[in-house]
Amino acid sequence: MPPGEFELIERYFRQPAEALRIRRGDVPLGIGDDGALLRPPPGRELVAVLDTLVAGRHFPAGSPPRSIGHRALAVNLSDLAAMGAQPAWFLLALTLPAAEEAFLDAFAQGLFELAQQHGMALVGGDTTAGPLAVSVQALGFVDAGTALRRGGAMPGDLLYVSGAPGEAAAGLQLALGEPAAALRDEQRQWLFERFHFPAPRIALGQALRGIASACIDVSDGLAADAGKLAAASGCAVTIEVERLPLSAALHAQAGTQAAQLALAGGDDYELCFTVPPDRIAGLDGRLAGAGCAVTRIGHLEVGSGVMFSGKGIPPFGVLAGYEHFRAR
Amino acid sequence: MPPGEFELIERYFRQPAEALRIRRGDVPLGIGDDGALLRPPPGRELVAVLDTLVAGRHFPAGSPPRSIGHRALAVNLSDLAAMGAQPAWFLLALTLPAAEEAFLDAFAQGLFELAQQHGMALVGGDTTAGPLAVSVQALGFVDAGTALRRGGAMPGDLLYVSGAPGEAAAGLQLALGEPAAALRDEQRQWLFERFHFPAPRIALGQALRGIASACIDVSDGLAADAGKLAAASGCAVTIEVERLPLSAALHAQAGTQAAQLALAGGDDYELCFTVPPDRIAGLDGRLAGAGCAVTRIGHLEVGSGVMFSGKGIPPFGVLAGYEHFRAR
Repeated sequence: MPPGEFELIERYFRQPAEALRIRRGDVPLGIGDDGALLRPPPGRELVAVLDTLVAGRHFPAGSPPRSIGHRALAVNLSDLAAMGAQPAWFLLALTLPAAEEAFLDAFAQGLFELAQQHGMALVGGDTTAGPLAVSVQALGFVDAGTALRRGGAMPGDLLYVSGAPGEAAAGLQLALGEPAAALRDEQRQWLFERFHFPAPRIALGQALRGIASACIDVSDGLAADAGKLAAASGCAVTIEVERLPLSAALHAQAGTQAAQLALAGGDDYELCFTVPPDRIAGLDGRLAGAGCAVTRIGHLEVGSGVMFSGKGIPPFGVLAGYEHFRAR
Repeated sequence: MPPGEFELIERYFRQPAEALRIRRGDVPLGIGDDGALLRPPPGRELVAVLDTLVAGRHFPAGSPPRSIGHRALAVNLSDLAAMGAQPAWFLLALTLPAAEEAFLDAFAQGLFELAQQHGMALVGGDTTAGPLAVSVQALGFVDAGTALRRGGAMPGDLLYVSGAPGEAAAGLQLALGEPAAALRDEQRQWLFERFHFPAPRIALGQALRGIASACIDVSDGLAADAGKLAAASGCAVTIEVERLPLSAALHAQAGTQAAQLALAGGDDYELCFTVPPDRIAGLDGRLAGAGCAVTRIGHLEVGSGVMFSGKGIPPFGVLAGYEHFRAR
């Protein structure tokens, strides 16, 4: 008889979760009861995020299970990063067509490696049979009143992005079997990692509190997400296409479409944020421990919408960003 | 062009969520940013629960959308009830094959009716395209140290269940098109409601704090869930089959299988709990505002496992409860 659900949960989730729970010290009761008991620190606000990954839609059906585990948590950590929050706890809803041990082993490895890296504890969840999908709900803290929001930017604020947007989309092209001839082996490996194992910008998000006027994480494509930030702030945004930090690896894979992937590719999990001109001087000092570079790529203006300036503006149609259910 | 994802979220989720958010007053930031900001009350513990419903597994594929919305929240409220918690906030991960407005309208109605009834606010979520599944993650509060757990029972404690277990399973039989000849119209309607619109026992759970030594909600079948409570408490449990509160409607639908449905049927979302003999006197006074009857159905003993006494014990095989992935 194959192992039952409860034994699988015990082996792959409950034991590592218990180790992380004990280390945190603020989880009186973790996995195994009807709910978890958590002790939020006094005087701080709780930040709650939730994101779902569906096989064949958010990752290719044949993705490495370790990547699926990593990304399921990473996309939520990226949302916490965009709020400037410190990660604490998460819950996992895992829907699986079958309980394959090799899958669960690698999935749990990807999940817990990232959880441990950020000091998070898995405190609850639900495993069901069905088409492969993973929902993670993550909780973090932020000092009251200091959370980054999408809606705080003003005309004149400068627009920044972290890391090298477009690399994840190039990595996805590789995962789908479309490697370019110009791509070197180490570039191929780098782009593969960038899609399959994104590094959520937790340290950057926390460093930006008190400096950034607005922040969003880049999941649907830089242009679309910068547009959401601008709309929430009641502004227009101009992206200076020649300022985009297009990496050599991205150029090698995407060629003339590099700017297009950077603007519309999605899955970057970088932070896109605005800084008022009078706070620019403070930005550099904050970036020392953030673990990633940031690049100024534009500015906010009076008005609405997303505009592009400079050479190499991609065709309009590719800039709308990814939206489920939209007829296309 | 059919409405896009963001317009649908706006119409069916964001506006009602905003009304509930404002009413609560402890949600500085709700749906529409990268995460929600929440203000937990000082000195209380947070209770976090998460449950997923997958179409064709947790509800028949043709279930009324209003029921799907209701049940997605109700199964989580039932977990909060089993902890003795007061519901506060929830997040919704909704995976839909297509964005049909009639579905979303009725789904949201079922969801928000129940949320409003319990004063909860929807504070975040994620809508994705894929096979129909709903994950809800709910948060509540409990005074520190007073949460009900599965593991607090002792040998000699008496075992209770709320409501009429088995009715939901009988209602599911009806939903699957197997009505018994003996069933009257109003009984059919009642059983239908019991499966499709379960009433989570929030008031009962809170009333049981300080009285019950252990508590679990009945989702996988009374015998299996009583067994989990006993196992978590390091005890055996005996269920006195003749004491089971088998309703007239259950008898009419299930006939000689009534006890079997009550013990193994699942989907009841009643509470199963234990009370030490010296606290029985205090139980009645607590039940006045709980909105449901409770019945003593057995007791805990030294040992392990689930035993049955009295006439009418169903065949052994039906008592194991529902477990995903278990080979059968």
